[in-house]
Amino acid sequence: MAKNAFYAQSGGVTAVINTTACGVIETARKHKNKIGKVYAGRNGIIGALREELIDTSKESAANIAALKYTPSGAFGSCRYKLKSLEQHRAAYERLIEVFKAHDIGYFFYNGGGDSADTCLKISQLSKTMGYPIQAIHVPKTVDNDLPFTDNCPGFGSVAKYVAVSTKEAALDVASMCETSTRVFILEVMGRHAGWIAAAGALAQEKDGDAPHIILFPEIAFDKQKFLQKVKETVTKKGYCVIVASEGAQYADGTFLADAGTTDAFGHKQLGGVAPTLATLIKQELGYKYHWALADYLQRAARHIASKTDVEQAYAVGKKAVEFALQGKNAVMPTIVRAKGKKYRWSIGEAPLEKIANVEKFMPRKFISADGFQITKACRDYLQPLIQGEDHPPYKNGVPIHAKLKNVLVKKKIKADFKI
Amino acid sequence: MAKNAFYAQSGGVTAVINTTACGVIETARKHKNKIGKVYAGRNGIIGALREELIDTSKESAANIAALKYTPSGAFGSCRYKLKSLEQHRAAYERLIEVFKAHDIGYFFYNGGGDSADTCLKISQLSKTMGYPIQAIHVPKTVDNDLPFTDNCPGFGSVAKYVAVSTKEAALDVASMCETSTRVFILEVMGRHAGWIAAAGALAQEKDGDAPHIILFPEIAFDKQKFLQKVKETVTKKGYCVIVASEGAQYADGTFLADAGTTDAFGHKQLGGVAPTLATLIKQELGYKYHWALADYLQRAARHIASKTDVEQAYAVGKKAVEFALQGKNAVMPTIVRAKGKKYRWSIGEAPLEKIANVEKFMPRKFISADGFQITKACRDYLQPLIQGEDHPPYKNGVPIHAKLKNVLVKKKIKADFKI
Repeated sequence: MAKNAFYAQSGGVTAVINTTACGVIETARKHKNKIGKVYAGRNGIIGALREELIDTSKESAANIAALKYTPSGAFGSCRYKLKSLEQHRAAYERLIEVFKAHDIGYFFYNGGGDSADTCLKISQLSKTMGYPIQAIHVPKTVDNDLPFTDNCPGFGSVAKYVAVSTKEAALDVASMCETSTRVFILEVMGRHAGWIAAAGALAQEKDGDAPHIILFPEIAFDKQKFLQKVKETVTKKGYCVIVASEGAQYADGTFLADAGTTDAFGHKQLGGVAPTLATLIKQELGYKYHWALADYLQRAARHIASKTDVEQAYAVGKKAVEFALQGKNAVMPTIVRAKGKKYRWSIGEAPLEKIANVEKFMPRKFISADGFQITKACRDYLQPLIQGEDHPPYKNGVPIHAKLKNVLVKKKIKADFKI
Repeated sequence: MAKNAFYAQSGGVTAVINTTACGVIETARKHKNKIGKVYAGRNGIIGALREELIDTSKESAANIAALKYTPSGAFGSCRYKLKSLEQHRAAYERLIEVFKAHDIGYFFYNGGGDSADTCLKISQLSKTMGYPIQAIHVPKTVDNDLPFTDNCPGFGSVAKYVAVSTKEAALDVASMCETSTRVFILEVMGRHAGWIAAAGALAQEKDGDAPHIILFPEIAFDKQKFLQKVKETVTKKGYCVIVASEGAQYADGTFLADAGTTDAFGHKQLGGVAPTLATLIKQELGYKYHWALADYLQRAARHIASKTDVEQAYAVGKKAVEFALQGKNAVMPTIVRAKGKKYRWSIGEAPLEKIANVEKFMPRKFISADGFQITKACRDYLQPLIQGEDHPPYKNGVPIHAKLKNVLVKKKIKADFKI
């Protein structure tokens, strides 16, 4: 008898996480002898805790296919971290209880480092509790900070958004700088890893092109050196374009913009590097500035997604199901880059115990000696990830998105679970 | 003997002002018997004052054609307002001197209300100084605030950017709201007129869809009413998406975010409505928020330009040259909407004395009774303007842009002119 599957989206969503969902569901539908229904967690893992399971078998093939070009999390995501088995035992046991009640034998968890950790714990608990679950983690994060995989689905599209936006905005300031704006700052995501900021450099066709300064979390912010570089650039070029990571920080680890609030994972809520830098530049150098803060626009921008990213996002979802069919457990599909000049990739495999809670920062050799640019090695790494366009269909001038029915399965457990 | 033409870009640039330049240059090239060379002002009108004229005849046909998909001002723009003939007499006389020295008989000024005024003055001065100039104003402004024309080239593309970005980001917050972000605010341009903010409503497919609140400069901001609406929306929908115009203001005319600085036109430099609103919401209602400030990204976003806008931008440039060839003076090509259900447009004509320094605000009947939405009349007006996609060509994952040589013509006047 085929076991059912449970799929959940975790943490910050991306332009292509639904593409991965599509890969999971379409592949599972091809193996109905082994996988019964795919249930999706309403709002991620808390959908399992609350026994709010979306029956994806109620969705048409066309609607599931439309997930390929629908950004964000179509079933809802959440920021809810399960702590250690000791601290959160009741929650883990509830998960197993819900899985048991709905005959779920496969757990696909689509997220970043935190959810890889949860996925691993569920796999471990399944053994100790004697209820068999194959737990497969499916990578997703715009931050590109998962280890073992060459890159993370979701990153390529945000990288493309940042490269395209930087290239376009740089032309704007270049045309205004003679009498108006001298400095333009684009603030991008990346709390601890500078991958997204680094992607700004893909706007450059040659040395000296905008962006003239990139601020990475990995490089301690040096005010004097920064102001000197801004001044030099404006003197030489007439204007200066800066891409700043939200995680840009001083040598002592203080963020340039610390809003003072934290999310459910205990991460600081950031925002405001760009205005901080703009004020500094105005005060110290007197230049007129403009700044933009892309925030959700960057990770939701499916309209400018990378074709490579879309393909990889689908492939990891498909492979996750294939791993499950092969009897694998506590693993994650990875993207493997082949050796050689031409970019080629395939899907590999990594064990969860090596992935959980490990963050991959930019290697120092990917950042130029002065700390303001990327190196050729970094460019060679990043360039293929934004390759290709995958324009969504449009209606009335805006992209069409999947509209799921999201029908909930009837609850089988009487007791509620308090989140 | 054919007279030369002078073309200049003025004020804030757009995704399609170069498309208009392409329309001017390509059309002029077809009438070499009447129009000699097209000189473009380096950095707009100050290029004429400094006698820095770019010889566009040095550019290949392919490069001029590439202007169609290159955002920003390829010859440079400027924020430099010529005041009255009495106050700025020397500057106007210098312009005539430069035009005379380079045998320029046609003046094409591509800008908004301020430049329409300059264009008119040059036409007037040309008569009193006895040197014949045909001065044609070519409309351009993302603000959509020029009178007589049904809409302004540049607006349709920023409107499409705002509609698409709002639709995508709304999906993001919808998927996160159960445990995280409740309120998302997108701040958009529009100092005095709410046209750009209104375009956010084109993300809606039906009543109640995001954006749930739009803040227009035309409607006085009422803090209590606003907070009440945010609370109601979060209670009902789980989240709330807000599109706020940078020009949102209190009943007494104070901007919600007044940076305290002014540009060369005496306009206040704004920015920061979104963080102001976010802080207010956090303090009064306690909701977690995210906000984005699109700034230059919105008006430079050629990658998501409206096909309708691109076509109209080209058409006004072409028609400006045709007007010149017909001997017209002190006029502006306008976009005329035909009556009837299906959207059809043609190019009309308006005299500059009626256009200069008149701002077109949103009519009250375009804004809902509660002041937070657009009406059906407004939707019927806006919808066609974002219709169609015109994807630029890409290379290495980013759009290709024209790379002009921008060769300057040898100066003929000894005296410099101090800007």
